[in-house]
Amino acid sequence: MIRTIEWTDAGVVMLDQRLLPTQEIYRTYTNHSEVAEAIRSMVVRGAPAIGVAAAMGIAMGVDTSNPGSLAELDVLFERICSDIASTRPTAVNLFWAVERMKAVYSGTRPLGIPAVRSALIHESIVMHAEDIEANRAMGRFGQALIPNKARVLTHCNAGALATAGYGTALGVIRAAVEAGNQIEVYADETRPFLQGARLTAWELQQDGIPVTIITDNMAGHFMQKGKIDCVIVGADRIAANGDVANKIGTYSVAVLAKENGVPFFVAAPISTLDLSIPDGSHIPIEERDPDEVRKIMGVPITPMDAKVANPAFDVTPNRYVHAIITERGIARPPFQESLQTLARGAA
Amino acid sequence: MIRTIEWTDAGVVMLDQRLLPTQEIYRTYTNHSEVAEAIRSMVVRGAPAIGVAAAMGIAMGVDTSNPGSLAELDVLFERICSDIASTRPTAVNLFWAVERMKAVYSGTRPLGIPAVRSALIHESIVMHAEDIEANRAMGRFGQALIPNKARVLTHCNAGALATAGYGTALGVIRAAVEAGNQIEVYADETRPFLQGARLTAWELQQDGIPVTIITDNMAGHFMQKGKIDCVIVGADRIAANGDVANKIGTYSVAVLAKENGVPFFVAAPISTLDLSIPDGSHIPIEERDPDEVRKIMGVPITPMDAKVANPAFDVTPNRYVHAIITERGIARPPFQESLQTLARGAA
Repeated sequence: MIRTIEWTDAGVVMLDQRLLPTQEIYRTYTNHSEVAEAIRSMVVRGAPAIGVAAAMGIAMGVDTSNPGSLAELDVLFERICSDIASTRPTAVNLFWAVERMKAVYSGTRPLGIPAVRSALIHESIVMHAEDIEANRAMGRFGQALIPNKARVLTHCNAGALATAGYGTALGVIRAAVEAGNQIEVYADETRPFLQGARLTAWELQQDGIPVTIITDNMAGHFMQKGKIDCVIVGADRIAANGDVANKIGTYSVAVLAKENGVPFFVAAPISTLDLSIPDGSHIPIEERDPDEVRKIMGVPITPMDAKVANPAFDVTPNRYVHAIITERGIARPPFQESLQTLARGAA
Repeated sequence: MIRTIEWTDAGVVMLDQRLLPTQEIYRTYTNHSEVAEAIRSMVVRGAPAIGVAAAMGIAMGVDTSNPGSLAELDVLFERICSDIASTRPTAVNLFWAVERMKAVYSGTRPLGIPAVRSALIHESIVMHAEDIEANRAMGRFGQALIPNKARVLTHCNAGALATAGYGTALGVIRAAVEAGNQIEVYADETRPFLQGARLTAWELQQDGIPVTIITDNMAGHFMQKGKIDCVIVGADRIAANGDVANKIGTYSVAVLAKENGVPFFVAAPISTLDLSIPDGSHIPIEERDPDEVRKIMGVPITPMDAKVANPAFDVTPNRYVHAIITERGIARPPFQESLQTLARGAA
C-alpha cells in the first residue's frame, strides 16, 4: 500500500514524489506554509491528492495556531485558506477542498476554537478516506470498460500517488486486474516532470502489473501499429460540457486515439467537476518554471538561456472523450446532461 | 557556419552531437570502424549527414588499407561497405551513399588502387558539397511556403547538424529568414535523444533565429491554441507513395497538424526517396537501446529494471503531408506521380 499523504501526530506526512523512483523519502510538514510549498513544488501532485493535501494543510494551520479569540481565528483562517488556494490554479479539487473546509469552519465556529480545530482535522482525515473509497468505486464501475488482455495507454500518473490511494485511472486498471483480467499498461513518460516514467511505472511495478514506458512522442506510433486497445487518464478539472483539463499532452493523446479508433476514457471523482464553467476555455492553465524543461533531474539539456514554454496542462474537448468514470457511475456523451445527473447524486 | 562533418588530412572530423549544447567537441576518426561506431552511437545523425559520413567512412577505409592486389581490395571494400551499411537501418541515405561509392569503385577499378583511393575520397567530398547545395536549393523552393511572421513547428533536428550544412527543414526556415521574413520556431524537444532541445535550439540560436523549446507533448496544445502556422520536418526515408519515415513523434505531430488545419511539410533531398518500396510499411524501424529512455544524460529517470520501448522512427502516411520539398522542386499530392517526376530529374 503506497502512502501518498497521511495525517499523523507528528504532522502531515508525504512521500516526496520529486525523488521517486530513485529515492523513497517521506517528509513531515508541521505548518500550513510548508504544506503549501509542498503542493507548489510538487512533493505531492495529482488533483485528488492536492485536494487532500489542501485540507490537511488548512487543518494543520489551524491546529498549530494560537488565536486569542474567534475573531482572530477568522482572520487567520482566511489567510491560511488563501495561502493554500494560491498554490496551483488548474486542479479544481484544491478549491473544492478549501470550500469544504470553510463550510466545516462555519458550521463548528459556534462551538468554539477547540471544536473548530478537531472538526477540521477530522474532516481532512474523512476526505482522505473518502478519496480512497471514491477511487475503489470508480474502479468497480470503470473495470467493465477494460477488456481482458487489453493494452491500456495512460498519460501522467493518475494512480495511488495522485490520490489518497488506489488511484483514478490506475484504480480502474487495478480493478480490472483484480477482476481477473490480464492488462498490459503503456505509460507515457510525461515530460517535463516524468510522472509516467518515474511514478506510474514505479507504482504499477509494486503491484506486479506489466508496464512498458514509452516517451510521449511514441504514443501515436503504438496506436497506429494497433498496439493500444484503450486510453485511460485522470483529470484536473472537468467543465460542465465534459471538456477535460489534464496533464499537458493529454489532448495530443486524445486526438491520436480518435484518429486511430481507440476509445479514450477519463477517470475522476465528482470533486473534479467544475459545473460553474460551461466549457474548457474557462479553465486557467498553469505555466510553470521554464527550468523544469531546461533541466532533467538537475542536468541541463538545452542551451542555458533557451526560451522555453511550460504549460502544465491542456484541455481535451469533450468530443474526444468516450466516457468519464466517476465514483457515482459512468458519464457518457452528451456530457452536459450526464455530468449534471451524476453531480446531483444519481448513480 | 556549423561544421558537422569534414574530410581533413588528419581524418574524418565530426562535431560530437551527443554532447551538445553543453560541450562543443570535435572528434577525428582515422579508420572506417571508428566512423561506423560514430554513426551507430549518434556522434553524427540525420539522414543526409549519415549519408556523407558513410561515404567518408568508406573512403577512409580504403585510404588506410594496404591491399596487395585489386582482388584483395575487392574483398576488403565489400567488408568496409557492409560494416558501414549495418550501422543504422532506417535512413535510406546511408544505403544510397554506399551504392554511390560502390559505383565509383567499379568505375575506377580498372585504373588501379591509387586511382580508386583518390576517386573515393573525391566522391565523398563532392557528396558533402552537393548536400549543402541541395539544402540551399530546398531552401529556395521551400521558403515560398513559409509566410512572413509564421510560427513554425519543427520536430527533431533537420538542420545543419543533420546534414553537411544549412539543413533541410531548418534550411527552408533559414531561407525564409534570408528572404526577409520574420520567423519564430517552436522546437519539440524530441525525446529520447533530445535533438530539438539540444541541437535545433543551439543551431538556431547561432543564427539568431528566435526559437522556443517545448516538450513533445506540448505540440498539440500550441496547435490547438492557434500558435502554430505550419510544421516542417526532415525525413529518413520516403516511400514511392509519399509515406515518410522520420524521427519518432513525427506521425503524432502530423496527426495533430491535420486535426488543427495546420499545413505539414517535409524537406528532404532526392537521396531520401526510396522508390523501390511502394509504401511506408516496408521501411525498417530501428529499435534502439532501452537505456536511451531509462536515462537522460546518464541520470536514471525510471525504475532501473523498467520495461521500455525505443523505436527511433515512425511512419507518417502520405495523406497527412501537404508538400515534400526537394532540391529539384516541391512534390504535391498525389505523391506517387510527383515524386516519380522529381526522381527522373525534372525541376
